[in-house]
Amino acid sequence: MRISIFRRAHFNAAHRLHNDHWSDEKNRQVFGKCNNSNFHGHNYEVEVRLTGEIDEETGYLFDLGELKEIIKVHVEDRYDHKNLNLDCPEFKDVNPSAEMICYNIFQILRAEIDQKFEIGIKLWETQRNYVQYPV
Amino acid sequence: MRISIFRRAHFNAAHRLHNDHWSDEKNRQVFGKCNNSNFHGHNYEVEVRLTGEIDEETGYLFDLGELKEIIKVHVEDRYDHKNLNLDCPEFKDVNPSAEMICYNIFQILRAEIDQKFEIGIKLWETQRNYVQYPV
Amino acid sequence: MRISIFRRAHFNAAHRLHNDHWSDEKNRQVFGKCNNSNFHGHNYEVEVRLTGEIDEETGYLFDLGELKEIIKVHVEDRYDHKNLNLDCPEFKDVNPSAEMICYNIFQILRAEIDQKFEIGIKLWETQRNYVQYPV
Amino acid sequence: MRISIFRRAHFNAAHRLHNDHWSDEKNRQVFGKCNNSNFHGHNYEVEVRLTGEIDEETGYLFDLGELKEIIKVHVEDRYDHKNLNLDCPEFKDVNPSAEMICYNIFQILRAEIDQKFEIGIKLWETQRNYVQYPV
Amino acid sequence: MRISIFRRAHFNAAHRLHNDHWSDEKNRQVFGKCNNSNFHGHNYEVEVRLTGEIDEETGYLFDLGELKEIIKVHVEDRYDHKNLNLDCPEFKDVNPSAEMICYNIFQILRAEIDQKFEIGIKLWETQRNYVQYPV
Amino acid sequence: MRISIFRRAHFNAAHRLHNDHWSDEKNRQVFGKCNNSNFHGHNYEVEVRLTGEIDEETGYLFDLGELKEIIKVHVEDRYDHKNLNLDCPEFKDVNPSAEMICYNIFQILRAEIDQKFEIGIKLWETQRNYVQYPV
Repeated sequence: MRISIFRRAHFNAAHRLHNDHWSDEKNRQVFGKCNNSNFHGHNYEVEVRLTGEIDEETGYLFDLGELKEIIKVHVEDRYDHKNLNLDCPEFKDVNPSAEMICYNIFQILRAEIDQKFEIGIKLWETQRNYVQYPV
Repeated sequence: MRISIFRRAHFNAAHRLHNDHWSDEKNRQVFGKCNNSNFHGHNYEVEVRLTGEIDEETGYLFDLGELKEIIKVHVEDRYDHKNLNLDCPEFKDVNPSAEMICYNIFQILRAEIDQKFEIGIKLWETQRNYVQYPV
Repeated sequence: MRISIFRRAHFNAAHRLHNDHWSDEKNRQVFGKCNNSNFHGHNYEVEVRLTGEIDEETGYLFDLGELKEIIKVHVEDRYDHKNLNLDCPEFKDVNPSAEMICYNIFQILRAEIDQKFEIGIKLWETQRNYVQYPV
Repeated sequence: MRISIFRRAHFNAAHRLHNDHWSDEKNRQVFGKCNNSNFHGHNYEVEVRLTGEIDEETGYLFDLGELKEIIKVHVEDRYDHKNLNLDCPEFKDVNPSAEMICYNIFQILRAEIDQKFEIGIKLWETQRNYVQYPV
Repeated sequence: MRISIFRRAHFNAAHRLHNDHWSDEKNRQVFGKCNNSNFHGHNYEVEVRLTGEIDEETGYLFDLGELKEIIKVHVEDRYDHKNLNLDCPEFKDVNPSAEMICYNIFQILRAEIDQKFEIGIKLWETQRNYVQYPV
Repeated sequence: MRISIFRRAHFNAAHRLHNDHWSDEKNRQVFGKCNNSNFHGHNYEVEVRLTGEIDEETGYLFDLGELKEIIKVHVEDRYDHKNLNLDCPEFKDVNPSAEMICYNIFQILRAEIDQKFEIGIKLWETQRNYVQYPV
């Protein structure tokens, strides 16, 4: 009996969008106010999905307390109150767009959660904009 | 032209998680504070999806007033202000975890709604935790 | 690397549900208070999904500012503060049910967005009722 | 021991803003798209506050089930799925602005609820705009 | 310069409403389904307000991390995953209505927070019902 | 007839909390992770209240379209996608705590809105933390 469970967490971070191979003018043109060299920031909301078989003895797919702790240690503690561009090496050469942060969180959690579970990530940058990986 | 419609409802209930075949110690270890023998409770939010073909004469997939009434009679009236462990025979030998409540609501509504419609259930136990069946 | 992005917008409109080929009595019976000949209204919330490949130079799937503008021009400006039955020719012979409005927004945006992106629409008529096309 | 309780309800209605003593041009200038002669509409959310002394025997200020029923009969049944301008005599000569609807709901409920309770009304016209009476 | 700050927290608990001095029949009549002898439950949301003078050196009214910890220790740890009637002596002879829980949380936090700050509590029992003390 | 109207807006910004007169150690001790020298950020939500007499000709307290524009020009355009510490002179010697941002927005809007209206500001830094000025 396959089922999905979902858990939400959040972190607050600063970022800017910038491509080092482009002129300042092209960066401003493409990224607009997101290119501000002094950074801006967001309250990011992340939702983690696990899909798999229910454990008949517990009625659980996965212990939600354990999932909460995995997300806290590997996502919240890593990104909360950070500058994604300056404090996080994974975004040194990669733009910390919502798309790339979401993809990165998928990779981080994929390494922490048993392969018998499918996982999926949604990431809200504002209440009106969010991304999902995988589709 | 296939489309999906969604309707939300809610109920407030008490429950505890417990496996009768385990020692009290193992129950406390696995279920933590959810094992409290005096129960705790939640405001459950349920979302029902129906998928099928639009009726050309009405522009409806399914009458939402009728769907609201089906959910009221078969889900809300059954679970609202109840103790899931003590008042609901279906959870006598099955843990009323969010996963099992969601699966149970699917079975209840599957019997009430015409087979030409696919159905799906999401169940929120808190604003940060929810489950979905089928996946 | 395929990913999905989502953007929300909203508009406020009046509508009624009515089938011209039916008697007044049948209309009242099927559509109930939604059949009020003087109309009623809603705050519609629309969510647009785009799915495709991330652009490596920007880290974007699609420029969200551009998507916001497309939705504003082609959906919000078209439907906001309108009477869907009287002001919108597309609903002259089609009931402006949530299902048909959603399908219509899909057709409108499908014509505006590059075919290399899949698109999907969700439309909330109230906080408890919404529809999705395609499924 | 004075305390306040709050109960939320909602209704969906059409309206337009218009002053019969003004020219069409002035109406369009002042009320903009809210002046559309074919009406538009909203999901109105209403919150009712009662303030008074707790009943020691029940621990209640007021029975919330009873309050829910009063709001249903006197506010929801009166305004839900209505055209405020055409179906509601109280808005024949009064603009159904959020301010005036809120004030009107206050007057309606003031007549239904024992004077020993203070009452207050908030009315949301959209998620970003609301009004309160009295202040 | 006086200002108010607000912090939200939550806990999940079971309860029932019952007056020991009344007959079972009167209890059922007054409290309805809230009188279920097997209990039901809620996700309670609590909002704590502190009002006072801003500290010029920090720009803070009160350290929100410290406030979060006070609420966690004195409210969340005390009530989360509890049966309010059976596990909490303060509700042995007092009905755990939303009103009385709110008043009780006020008394608990009033003893923990410096008297130079005014405090106020709001408590949501469901998304549509909440209470406030003091008024 | 006095009434209050409320309008919400939002902006996304980076900030850090720091007192130049303190040692780095004291700053870290008092402000914790909010002291990160590389900044972090938030989605700020602002709610503006106006209180006064309803205009009998319009049924309005104040034109909400005009209020939206005032907030856009004087608050959103000023703070959205900015670094509050580096880009905003008003926070050069004042910590951009939620309290001080809220107070500052009050001062900005007080200068733009007719004195016959009382005004009030709420500012959310996260969904769980907000401030209000005046109290």
